[in-house]
Amino acid sequence: MPAVHLEILKKDTKTNARLGKLHTPHGVIETPVFMPVGTQATVKTMTPEELKALGAKIILSNTYHLFLRPGQDLIKEAGGLHKFMNWDGAILTDSGGFQVFSLGDLRKISEEGVEFRSHLDGSKKFLSPEIATQVQMALGSDIVMAFDECAPYPCTHEYAKNSLERTIRWLKRCKETIGESERQSLFGIVQGGTFADLRKESASQTTALDLPGYAIGGLSVGEPKDLMYEMLEHTVPLLPEDKPRYLMGVGSPDALIEGAMRGIDMFDCVLPTRIARNGTAMTRFGKLVVRNAEVAKDFSPIDSTCDCYTCKNYSRAYVRHLLKADEILGLRLMSIHNLHFLQTVMKEIRQAIAEDCLPEYRNRFFRDYGYENQE
Amino acid sequence: MPAVHLEILKKDTKTNARLGKLHTPHGVIETPVFMPVGTQATVKTMTPEELKALGAKIILSNTYHLFLRPGQDLIKEAGGLHKFMNWDGAILTDSGGFQVFSLGDLRKISEEGVEFRSHLDGSKKFLSPEIATQVQMALGSDIVMAFDECAPYPCTHEYAKNSLERTIRWLKRCKETIGESERQSLFGIVQGGTFADLRKESASQTTALDLPGYAIGGLSVGEPKDLMYEMLEHTVPLLPEDKPRYLMGVGSPDALIEGAMRGIDMFDCVLPTRIARNGTAMTRFGKLVVRNAEVAKDFSPIDSTCDCYTCKNYSRAYVRHLLKADEILGLRLMSIHNLHFLQTVMKEIRQAIAEDCLPEYRNRFFRDYGYENQE
Repeated sequence: MPAVHLEILKKDTKTNARLGKLHTPHGVIETPVFMPVGTQATVKTMTPEELKALGAKIILSNTYHLFLRPGQDLIKEAGGLHKFMNWDGAILTDSGGFQVFSLGDLRKISEEGVEFRSHLDGSKKFLSPEIATQVQMALGSDIVMAFDECAPYPCTHEYAKNSLERTIRWLKRCKETIGESERQSLFGIVQGGTFADLRKESASQTTALDLPGYAIGGLSVGEPKDLMYEMLEHTVPLLPEDKPRYLMGVGSPDALIEGAMRGIDMFDCVLPTRIARNGTAMTRFGKLVVRNAEVAKDFSPIDSTCDCYTCKNYSRAYVRHLLKADEILGLRLMSIHNLHFLQTVMKEIRQAIAEDCLPEYRNRFFRDYGYENQE
Repeated sequence: MPAVHLEILKKDTKTNARLGKLHTPHGVIETPVFMPVGTQATVKTMTPEELKALGAKIILSNTYHLFLRPGQDLIKEAGGLHKFMNWDGAILTDSGGFQVFSLGDLRKISEEGVEFRSHLDGSKKFLSPEIATQVQMALGSDIVMAFDECAPYPCTHEYAKNSLERTIRWLKRCKETIGESERQSLFGIVQGGTFADLRKESASQTTALDLPGYAIGGLSVGEPKDLMYEMLEHTVPLLPEDKPRYLMGVGSPDALIEGAMRGIDMFDCVLPTRIARNGTAMTRFGKLVVRNAEVAKDFSPIDSTCDCYTCKNYSRAYVRHLLKADEILGLRLMSIHNLHFLQTVMKEIRQAIAEDCLPEYRNRFFRDYGYENQE
């Protein structure tokens, strides 16, 4: 049994969702799960204790950023990423692939890897499947992501095909590099853009390597949501039932519910914390722009149905004042609220699966939230 | 008995220090006390719970800033400043005097008050003794500071004399405005620059008004510390023994100890939180610039003798990484540490008074901290 494995507790009778427990060397996580993002060895504005109070048991951190600063050697010397950042829950690290490909003109791809300019000081850097894996091994993350190429949207069939084939070749090198690690588990990433035949080819070749888990990459990169859901419907059934499935970069409440219904176990996204810092709260009744003048004298909580620290103790008017005055507490209160909201949505999804009412939950949620694409 | 009054528990036998309890409508505070500054209705980066965990029971907030944003009417409508910011401890508000006089060319002083341009939008604003007091009455602070003129250092005897006389005339208008408030207590401010005769004149006229407490203003504005201590030695004996004495704008550890030895009960300063955010930690062994390269691989805590949340859980290397990466958690961890340090120093001062060893404590502290002016 790999160090990271999924115990399936229940399969939904009405959808492809499943309820499970993800076992990791740093704890057991109820799935489907949303993972807060701690790009630079910190979930922005939050302490580990605050994350735990929200129910978070696994977070994501970014190889690209930590490779550049403070460097994996320093973190290894500190005793690994868990100890460095004082987080004893599970950690998934991405591979840096997505970030370096996003650098555009600043990077040069070869079969060996990707040469790029650091966004910090312009210095020349190089990441390859071997290096990206070694960095993650030094960090000591529980789940190590393969170094992949994420094709942009839109792109041609040929581009997506070349990209997925390189991703497969690179995946083999990642697997070779990590070897028989007992503490760290490598997840492969299925690519193929928005082409069903390529998703099939990628899934087939990726799962042939018999890895502890599989991610679906290259979605939520600008394509319409319906197309993302269609791709999930094509791809998820091609993944083994007994392995965790991770949809990368997805964190809007609607997509979490739709993803779970299509069999996804894990999600991550910077969305809740990023929009929090920009002053937008996620609530059960849709988004609320707390910076807006209309809440200036609104002494009710951000969401009166919410029992997070922010909503229990502070008014919209106070949080707005803090945001307008550039006060850090405003960013903290907003981040706590949005992360709490997504943790609550995931808990409700799990409960709905347990009670065989996920579609009903989805419809009720969409109606309250004000989504247009209600059924 | 005024709503705010000082119960003196013990007078030091070796110095002019005293140990006391400051009674307020929002709790009893052990003195001598350092008050963290929450300029814009928040002590920067901190929640009220975190402040309480540090032992803080009274904070300062700024009339000038709250008058401009979000405005005292909004805060009054919210139920007052305590409720608005979720702080049930005591609050002292300054009068805005120091801030408007610091605006330089942007303000125009008359006998009626001060006309100035808002630093936020350049709009024309006006503060007078009446308005500054009314604003503080709307905020609902426990201690209301008089609207004074703080003379700069250096200044002429004539300037300082005119300034203190205007401060006295304004103080009478503040007292008239607050009237017989049962919940809010007005403190007068002794001015007079660095001139002993003017300090005497100011103290005499200010204490003649029989107020619940007295502050010493116009010090720590650029003069040498020895001169500040000399002025305290002149001024403090002119204040009634049974009333609280507040030295405004002082927060360096040496000055807290020296001030307490000269009979001061209350201090405030933005120093600990401001230098924290700039990356400088106060420790028992002197200041530590956590941003410096020399701590990059230092996995020890900021201060190994410190039991604050930061020092118990994080290394210098991690805090430095957060600061270099512009992560908010870095600002939080630094602020917690520095405020905890000053709370600890105050606790030690109180204990030293109780145990009749304040001069010995002072000398030990100065030696460890590396101050040059050891006795």
